[in-house]
Amino acid sequence: MPHPRLHCFAQSGNCFKVAMFLNCAGMTWQPMFVDFFAGTTRDPAWRTGQNAMGEAPVLEIAGKRLSQSGAILTYLADTKGRFQPVSEDERLDVLRWILFDNHKFTGNFATYRFLRSLAPQPPDPAVLAFLKGRAEAAFRIVDLHLTDRDFLVGEALSIADLSLSGYLFYPEDEHGFDIANAYPNIDRWRSRIANMPGWVEPYSCMPGERFLARR
Amino acid sequence: MPHPRLHCFAQSGNCFKVAMFLNCAGMTWQPMFVDFFAGTTRDPAWRTGQNAMGEAPVLEIAGKRLSQSGAILTYLADTKGRFQPVSEDERLDVLRWILFDNHKFTGNFATYRFLRSLAPQPPDPAVLAFLKGRAEAAFRIVDLHLTDRDFLVGEALSIADLSLSGYLFYPEDEHGFDIANAYPNIDRWRSRIANMPGWVEPYSCMPGERFLARR
Repeated sequence: MPHPRLHCFAQSGNCFKVAMFLNCAGMTWQPMFVDFFAGTTRDPAWRTGQNAMGEAPVLEIAGKRLSQSGAILTYLADTKGRFQPVSEDERLDVLRWILFDNHKFTGNFATYRFLRSLAPQPPDPAVLAFLKGRAEAAFRIVDLHLTDRDFLVGEALSIADLSLSGYLFYPEDEHGFDIANAYPNIDRWRSRIANMPGWVEPYSCMPGERFLARR
Repeated sequence: MPHPRLHCFAQSGNCFKVAMFLNCAGMTWQPMFVDFFAGTTRDPAWRTGQNAMGEAPVLEIAGKRLSQSGAILTYLADTKGRFQPVSEDERLDVLRWILFDNHKFTGNFATYRFLRSLAPQPPDPAVLAFLKGRAEAAFRIVDLHLTDRDFLVGEALSIADLSLSGYLFYPEDEHGFDIANAYPNIDRWRSRIANMPGWVEPYSCMPGERFLARR
């Protein structure tokens, strides 16, 4: 059986969510560079051959071609028996946090970081302020939830943690959120995840050079 | 066993996603009005007692209190044996579309409609244009996918269809998208869903008066 191949690029926290699983589960995998900033995922060839949704990551594994980080994480957790609680109630709670991540947390924070630091065009200040406000509201909800918990669901690391933390390991100059001071519970939780065996930071395990489009 | 209680309000397509399941599965349920426009979901009491994520819908069923429409739909499909494919591959594909809905489709379209027509403050034009562009990109992906398919996954209605279509049954004056002409495949798929036995339009099955905050 060939090793899983993760189509990814270093700046993508959605790709990193899957890379974290593969690394922390001790799996051997092969990164395949997606040249996102040259427009690869907007190319009709990508949409026909890899992912109709026009996104990375795509994971090739066991003859399948999977997309959407939350679906990939669910597949990996179920087939590898890692980072997924056993009770039905907790599994549903994991799904609930992954959905919240997609809708409100990553959904706003990643777009904010992209427009602020990575997009070729300077962002509209009103759009930037709008996304920042929505990301901050989501951060407050997660920080409050983590007040008396080590992980989002149950007592151990789950794919909910890997999903929501995906964009939190990028340097502060990319997103400008002072997480350590403004969201101390998120900061401690983030450290707990980074201390898992096998964990590697995004720019060291996925292809692509770090850059800032502007200062 | 008491009937399930859906905490909801008529304007919420996320609530309507769950109401569609309950109606199309022929279940008896009780709507509980959430006074969203008076700030109920932002109230600390709601966040402590109902949903820490500060959102509707919340479904009370079988002694549980569930939130996030995608998680509720998954729970209902699995426990009622309706609107969920049997194969693992198709189940993962259903989850993939529900995640795309939360991240890109509803995530942008619902926010656009809210700011355009329902929010008390007039929206910033740049924010409105930004959200509209992102919603249109998501609509194009779904319309293309539905070119030669009756439903999003497999050959039958699934919770993926209920999730993505939730906001498409509101009057055009609320969102301004000319779906019939601009997205004909989405339009036909929407009609297929509205023709399911038991289907009822949002303002007829959930509490709350229709209004437009501005013209």
